[in-house]
Amino acid sequence: MVQPSSLTPTERSFYYSGMRKGEQTRAAILDEALRLASAVGLEGLTIGRLAEDLDLSKSGLFAHFDSKENLQLALLDRAAERFTEVVIRPALAEPPGERRLRVLFERWLEWPKRVRQPGGCIWVAAASELDDQPGAARERLVALWRDWLTSVAHVVRSGQKAGGFRADVDPEQVAFEMNGIGLAWHLESRLLGDRRALERAHAAFERLVASARPSR
Amino acid sequence: MVQPSSLTPTERSFYYSGMRKGEQTRAAILDEALRLASAVGLEGLTIGRLAEDLDLSKSGLFAHFDSKENLQLALLDRAAERFTEVVIRPALAEPPGERRLRVLFERWLEWPKRVRQPGGCIWVAAASELDDQPGAARERLVALWRDWLTSVAHVVRSGQKAGGFRADVDPEQVAFEMNGIGLAWHLESRLLGDRRALERAHAAFERLVASARPSR
Repeated sequence: MVQPSSLTPTERSFYYSGMRKGEQTRAAILDEALRLASAVGLEGLTIGRLAEDLDLSKSGLFAHFDSKENLQLALLDRAAERFTEVVIRPALAEPPGERRLRVLFERWLEWPKRVRQPGGCIWVAAASELDDQPGAARERLVALWRDWLTSVAHVVRSGQKAGGFRADVDPEQVAFEMNGIGLAWHLESRLLGDRRALERAHAAFERLVASARPSR
Repeated sequence: MVQPSSLTPTERSFYYSGMRKGEQTRAAILDEALRLASAVGLEGLTIGRLAEDLDLSKSGLFAHFDSKENLQLALLDRAAERFTEVVIRPALAEPPGERRLRVLFERWLEWPKRVRQPGGCIWVAAASELDDQPGAARERLVALWRDWLTSVAHVVRSGQKAGGFRADVDPEQVAFEMNGIGLAWHLESRLLGDRRALERAHAAFERLVASARPSR
């Protein structure tokens, strides 16, 4: 099977355990595609270029993805699967409230490192790339972005039920603002190479959480 | 001279007044290039495509911009000029403090409409596109983004001197957070087509401003 070069054998067996061989190959191809697309964009991700990167034949890749659009869709779904694994699930393992929201936030910032995307978060890159490109890939991306914002709002809502956040806080507003903090961090750390971006993102998040805390 | 189709004759004479004819032509070409690039990206903006859009010969365009990179640089500079005109200057015309920051924020959200960018804000689009593309265009973009964040911080600082914001507020932190609000608004309004995005952006801005107000 394809061996993504960035994984240690242990990571590899962990990530792909429980999958049948065909699924494993497909997942490994998509993980490589994700790395590549984070840097060159979804449009730059051609089957030819991916085949070259993986040292596979183009026809071999076509057996998995019969068009560029299907490759893009499969890539977005695979990225969503990994995102759930490294961001959503660890957050849901925390008790509802501030801790859960904090883990969600931290994991989100870390995810381009945890699931290696050398060109930065695929969601951010694809958002700019696809916003003027009607089609199935754009629709999928929109659904995934909505899922993300809904997940953040759910975490706020469960925190409200548990008494960790004030009842009059608007969960969708918190999701909007937390999203903005992440986008600003992404831009300032990646494009501007600003070393203080992470510190600022944390300060912004603390201000957001403080504004949602129940008054004593 | 080139007549950008989206301008009324009055707007045209206003925008290009005070320029010599050669400069006017160049500015009008770049305004069209800005519209085009907002949708197709800086990489999609080829001299051939722009010539077609403007109904000019490729060789005529080459007389103005002898390479794609020079066209990109000229476009970024022209966009910055227009941004200063419609965002920075109107804000500086307001008294320092909350009003000035508010106008800066509002004008920033409106700028892809005021200086027509049908594909959304060129700075946001270019940020994702160029963050992995070393070169002169990336360097220029980084300088322009830094200018923007510095301008926001300056507006906060002048507001502090005038007593409109608390002295212990970190101007760069406000700039970071205001930037995040704008990025979230851009994504949610453009990609997700969320009608409540503007309302959420305003609510976030109000929370930011309230946190910087002197306590009574």
